[in-house]
Amino acid sequence: MLYIVGLGLGGERGITVRGLDAVRRCARIYMEARTALLTFGVDGDPSSRLTKLENLCGNAVTVAGREIVEGEGGDQILREATGADIAFLVVGHPFGSDEPSCKATYTDLVVQAKELGIVVKVIDSASVLNAVGACGLELHRYGEAITIPFFTETCKRDHFYQTIVNNRWLGLHTLCLLDIYAKEPISESLIRGNKVYEPPRFMTVNTAISQLLEVLEMRGEPEPAYDEDSLCIGLARLGSDDEKIVAGPMRKLVDVDFGPPPHCLVVVGETTQVEKGMLQFYMIRS
Amino acid sequence: MLYIVGLGLGGERGITVRGLDAVRRCARIYMEARTALLTFGVDGDPSSRLTKLENLCGNAVTVAGREIVEGEGGDQILREATGADIAFLVVGHPFGSDEPSCKATYTDLVVQAKELGIVVKVIDSASVLNAVGACGLELHRYGEAITIPFFTETCKRDHFYQTIVNNRWLGLHTLCLLDIYAKEPISESLIRGNKVYEPPRFMTVNTAISQLLEVLEMRGEPEPAYDEDSLCIGLARLGSDDEKIVAGPMRKLVDVDFGPPPHCLVVVGETTQVEKGMLQFYMIRS
Repeated sequence: MLYIVGLGLGGERGITVRGLDAVRRCARIYMEARTALLTFGVDGDPSSRLTKLENLCGNAVTVAGREIVEGEGGDQILREATGADIAFLVVGHPFGSDEPSCKATYTDLVVQAKELGIVVKVIDSASVLNAVGACGLELHRYGEAITIPFFTETCKRDHFYQTIVNNRWLGLHTLCLLDIYAKEPISESLIRGNKVYEPPRFMTVNTAISQLLEVLEMRGEPEPAYDEDSLCIGLARLGSDDEKIVAGPMRKLVDVDFGPPPHCLVVVGETTQVEKGMLQFYMIRS
Repeated sequence: MLYIVGLGLGGERGITVRGLDAVRRCARIYMEARTALLTFGVDGDPSSRLTKLENLCGNAVTVAGREIVEGEGGDQILREATGADIAFLVVGHPFGSDEPSCKATYTDLVVQAKELGIVVKVIDSASVLNAVGACGLELHRYGEAITIPFFTETCKRDHFYQTIVNNRWLGLHTLCLLDIYAKEPISESLIRGNKVYEPPRFMTVNTAISQLLEVLEMRGEPEPAYDEDSLCIGLARLGSDDEKIVAGPMRKLVDVDFGPPPHCLVVVGETTQVEKGMLQFYMIRS
């Protein structure tokens, strides 16, 4: 049996009681590495939260990078799951788009497992997609979520802009998931056959807003979907004790220090009275 | 301090470890009644899951109907929370739209508490909004969610239709939350001042599809947003051990027995290869 278990947000205690029951029964526990790096500080930190997670689960946790899940390691996980209970832990919700570029990987794992006749049990927990409700905007009034990728000198993909246009046209809010750059092998090292990893990076609210404003300049549209006065909400470490939520126009939020990751951003659509009531508690003072 | 704690899905074990820690510290525990009726069988069932929840929390749980939260009971909760740790449990996610008509109530409670200077801590868990990911459609490819209300002889509000139109135009999936009719005082009994409640009802996938098809007849549009051959997914008891997921055209799903509540429905938009791979496991055979 293969358990895909959501760890929820804010560290190891975001797992549900049902999830913990299942994990404690498992012979082996894997955890996906990519987003886990941000929450569990797995790399080079022996006193990290990973130890707390292992203590909670009562078993060692093997951190599985994308190359493991997609490659031979994936086969190994599936082989093990044919004869024993195996858990695969995912930060957030197993099918949340907390990290969209990685999501298809788990779905692939589930599809492969089902095709092999392995029973798959998904155990839910919170994800940024519902935890973002903490800012007071109604969850059913969000349109399609977007991911803002890191711009480079040579590559500034702004395909997400049209989604903001669509959402705002419908009066809806847009949740912007921000790029994570973690455990990516450096291209040259791949050629040499000796993988070297780049240091992990995460996108801040500040970078996200800078890039959104850069998109406006690049496009130069007469009636853009937003401008520097548009109301946005920056959210950091959702679900943690030190979560930080600040609302305000882009030109002000761009200078707010949100602290450690993970961050996300909401471009606000039309707001109801109840939403306005909640937002007042998070409005930037100046 | 006021803790608003999500119970997640599938009963008491959907609460997170963090949520359980908090609840066990609290002097009093309230639970909202409306959606809880469906999961915890609170009404007239002494051996219900409510007892299991109380055992898990190590304390009595007071079930608070809407009239309590919005009326004097709400004041009582707030008064208690100024001097002690009080928990307010919500099925699903505290800000999830598992039950949209009730959502504003919690938000109001949070706003009132904050205005009184009470520290409010929201503890997330899963909601139908991300648990619906179990069917294999990518969560960030859903548009705005809708709620389908019970049609009556005299009232058939189909305002949700336009949202399906918008979502399908954008190629997005539509999550349909289905109406719950629980613990509503009968109008005449309110006039008499002696409240009598109607028996709780929940909308099945079958009723939802029947009503969606009825909307088509009522509107008679030449190019409707869907028809009886449109691919939908019915989901029942998400997160529970006996969850049931079946995909197929409306005309077939309308006859499938999904069993006890809660139910929800997805009107499928454009699908990716990965999504098609997952859906095959749930397609109705005939």
